[in-house]
Amino acid sequence: MNTPIFNELNGIFLPHNVAVIGASPQDNYTWSLIGTRIRDRLFFVNPNYQEVLGRKSYASILDIDAPVDYAVIAVPARFVLGAVSDCINKGVRGVHIFTSGFSETGLPEGIRLEKELADLARGKIRIIGPNCMGSYCPKSGLSFNPASTNVEGSIGVICQSGTFAQMFVYAGRSMNMKISKMVSYGNAVDLDCPDFLEYLADDPDTSVIALYIEGIRDGRRLRSALEYAAGKKPLVALKGGVTGAGGRVAASHTGSLAGTGQTWSTMFKQSGVVQVEDIDDLLNATIAMSSSRPPSGTGVAIITYSGGFAVVQSDMCVRAGLQVPQFSKEAIAELRKFVPAAGTMVGNPLDSWQLFYRFSGEGRLSDVLRIISGEKQIHTIILQFDIIRFMTMMWREGTEEKLMAIAADFLAGCRYARDQAGRLVMIAIYLEPYTDNEMERRLSVLLKKMCEEQGFVVCSSLKEAIRTVSYMCRYATIKDNRR
Amino acid sequence: MNTPIFNELNGIFLPHNVAVIGASPQDNYTWSLIGTRIRDRLFFVNPNYQEVLGRKSYASILDIDAPVDYAVIAVPARFVLGAVSDCINKGVRGVHIFTSGFSETGLPEGIRLEKELADLARGKIRIIGPNCMGSYCPKSGLSFNPASTNVEGSIGVICQSGTFAQMFVYAGRSMNMKISKMVSYGNAVDLDCPDFLEYLADDPDTSVIALYIEGIRDGRRLRSALEYAAGKKPLVALKGGVTGAGGRVAASHTGSLAGTGQTWSTMFKQSGVVQVEDIDDLLNATIAMSSSRPPSGTGVAIITYSGGFAVVQSDMCVRAGLQVPQFSKEAIAELRKFVPAAGTMVGNPLDSWQLFYRFSGEGRLSDVLRIISGEKQIHTIILQFDIIRFMTMMWREGTEEKLMAIAADFLAGCRYARDQAGRLVMIAIYLEPYTDNEMERRLSVLLKKMCEEQGFVVCSSLKEAIRTVSYMCRYATIKDNRR
Repeated sequence: MNTPIFNELNGIFLPHNVAVIGASPQDNYTWSLIGTRIRDRLFFVNPNYQEVLGRKSYASILDIDAPVDYAVIAVPARFVLGAVSDCINKGVRGVHIFTSGFSETGLPEGIRLEKELADLARGKIRIIGPNCMGSYCPKSGLSFNPASTNVEGSIGVICQSGTFAQMFVYAGRSMNMKISKMVSYGNAVDLDCPDFLEYLADDPDTSVIALYIEGIRDGRRLRSALEYAAGKKPLVALKGGVTGAGGRVAASHTGSLAGTGQTWSTMFKQSGVVQVEDIDDLLNATIAMSSSRPPSGTGVAIITYSGGFAVVQSDMCVRAGLQVPQFSKEAIAELRKFVPAAGTMVGNPLDSWQLFYRFSGEGRLSDVLRIISGEKQIHTIILQFDIIRFMTMMWREGTEEKLMAIAADFLAGCRYARDQAGRLVMIAIYLEPYTDNEMERRLSVLLKKMCEEQGFVVCSSLKEAIRTVSYMCRYATIKDNRR
Repeated sequence: MNTPIFNELNGIFLPHNVAVIGASPQDNYTWSLIGTRIRDRLFFVNPNYQEVLGRKSYASILDIDAPVDYAVIAVPARFVLGAVSDCINKGVRGVHIFTSGFSETGLPEGIRLEKELADLARGKIRIIGPNCMGSYCPKSGLSFNPASTNVEGSIGVICQSGTFAQMFVYAGRSMNMKISKMVSYGNAVDLDCPDFLEYLADDPDTSVIALYIEGIRDGRRLRSALEYAAGKKPLVALKGGVTGAGGRVAASHTGSLAGTGQTWSTMFKQSGVVQVEDIDDLLNATIAMSSSRPPSGTGVAIITYSGGFAVVQSDMCVRAGLQVPQFSKEAIAELRKFVPAAGTMVGNPLDSWQLFYRFSGEGRLSDVLRIISGEKQIHTIILQFDIIRFMTMMWREGTEEKLMAIAADFLAGCRYARDQAGRLVMIAIYLEPYTDNEMERRLSVLLKKMCEEQGFVVCSSLKEAIRTVSYMCRYATIKDNRR
């Protein structure tokens, strides 16, 4: 049994015919939607144009001689009520209002306009917004950014910030973020966070929910929706405004009563929600949870090329609530066969740059991964593959071929660890954003894609991989406590 | 009055003639040193070659008919004692031993070999290493990585990890890291961390010291060297192995007795050292301290294009011990003239994407920077310029010209804030490492260079900028307490 909101929101995320009111050759909705599968069911409305991007532009939505079930409204604030009124008359079921200039201004006129909007719509039409990016749904073709991909995924996103919603879109290009449905809901004059939570909880296309929230009108309803959603699938939340200063800013950003950080943390904890600390965590944790099962314990093994990282990141594991248990004597004896004694560490972390350069013969990374997969105290294996910049220096030719041979080998080991031994496998591939080493960049992108294509989570640093594992462990604990 | 070690180490960092013992066409020292100004005072030694990279290769250092004052030893462990013995006979004053296979193996043979090495050298020659990268000094031309730059800077680096030393080198290419002298000192059979600290404290070319340390033999001497150095210039330290697991790993990495995290933190605090938590912090904080004066208080203003970031990063400021004080009514009234009410926040943080797109007329970023510079409660201004990806979408042509006009304007504002108003100015330019938007990448690199050329600190995210400011504030407190 789905919640009552399900059918309404399903119609809004998967509309048949769509209109853009205020379409223009400069407008991002126009550009975004004409690039997706919605293009053949798309109508442009703007009395100032005869044509927009080669399509007829209607003076009013009422002139369209086909039913329209969803409309994007991107006109100046003073025209919004008229547009919504037209939509009601047209029989549109849901609108997204991009336009800002409502209650978020803090000005009497904006507050009044928002109240009028609420009164006009009540019982007649559902509203997303105003003052927000709206919806992205690769399945239907809804989009707010021409750079969004059409790849259908299983991550549902609810976001009280337009910029963070954009970051999820860009993560779809660069981070293997595959989204089912996303909504940026701004001032929430009608549809609010709990509605979207209940919908995504029941949505069969969504397996994980990411939430960014600053505040809420109805705390009791939010708590019940959080519990409902977190009871059905992993729910990862970032609360903005948990400190005094952050709370003051949140109040000004979305007019939200932010509440104290402690209140929210308690509510998240009691509801079974995994709370994270920043937007990078939210992106990484939801990507990981959408593709991998959580580990069955907190024991982490790290395979690295660097003693410095081994030391510092073991500290970080402990700070994040993870353990770095030593390997068994038998495993260490096995590993010693492959790892020279000089300048290495045979143990956990395993520090041996030599392993990363072996593209044939015995003692390659796959052998090491198989040995570590047999260790009972290890639940997650993190492979830190940050050495492409050193490979481009070490090998003056044939770098790509050698790297591909190494990747084929270690991916076989990673598949074994995941599929046969049931370990969580994470791969960290660091790439300095401002590097001037073009070969390093090209090969890093290539390697990352190869790993992602086989379903492995790739983080952009060992540090991020560790943080992500710690959030997955928290989710595992939540699940265990439910049993 | 310099400490007694000064002249000895000065000779080692600024040698006249240098030999590479074990030079080969595959060896990184050979490639590194032939690419620097040392090339004309460089001799290769390897009995297996007649020539290396077109230069004569000597069978022994004793065959060179010129004095040699410094040698890099990169031969198998069993030949190291012979090579050092030859160096002593040749009159060499200092050697760096790259070779590993000594006490770090934990094996009796390695430990015995290291003891013999110590006995052989005592009173006759100074040793850096074994099992380390050695020295990098743009002034003399010493280098261990062909990718190192020849730019002379003022950051001194002491690093008990080869990988982290390499990260400082790469940061010289991509992060405006400008180094005076760096040493990776490995097993420290002779010269140890306190020696390098005392040297860099007295070194007129060094204005800031970065330290990565895992452990030490003589705690009392380290404390005295830390106090000496931190009393002369900013000293930023990362201690590896502060947790149980990290400590166990550190012991295995460099044979160090790591001690408890608390003991080290107390020692750093009492010595006036700024302790950081990871390697990114160490890089960012030392770059910032080498180019900028610390702020005169903890008040931070953030100028952003995103309400979500404004909220979440205000939380982060508070967690990092900073404040985000509200602007005065007068300043807010002034800012309101430039910032439309809809979808923005006029206050601290200042959230208005419109500001970032203005390349002419009134109400540009420079106007905003001037207003905020007048606020007494604000000591640092952080400009989050993460919007190049949006610019490439928004402006379908002329993006570079417009961006350059915007940059010229905001840099004028930043100079005013720094030079006239005495504020610390930080610029955050986020670039997703795996982005496929080539224009975003090119323009981000260009903008970053422009900011750095004018002496501003550019961090790769707002989060990193905030962490960096928090470390600068800690340094300011240390300085104030001394007065």
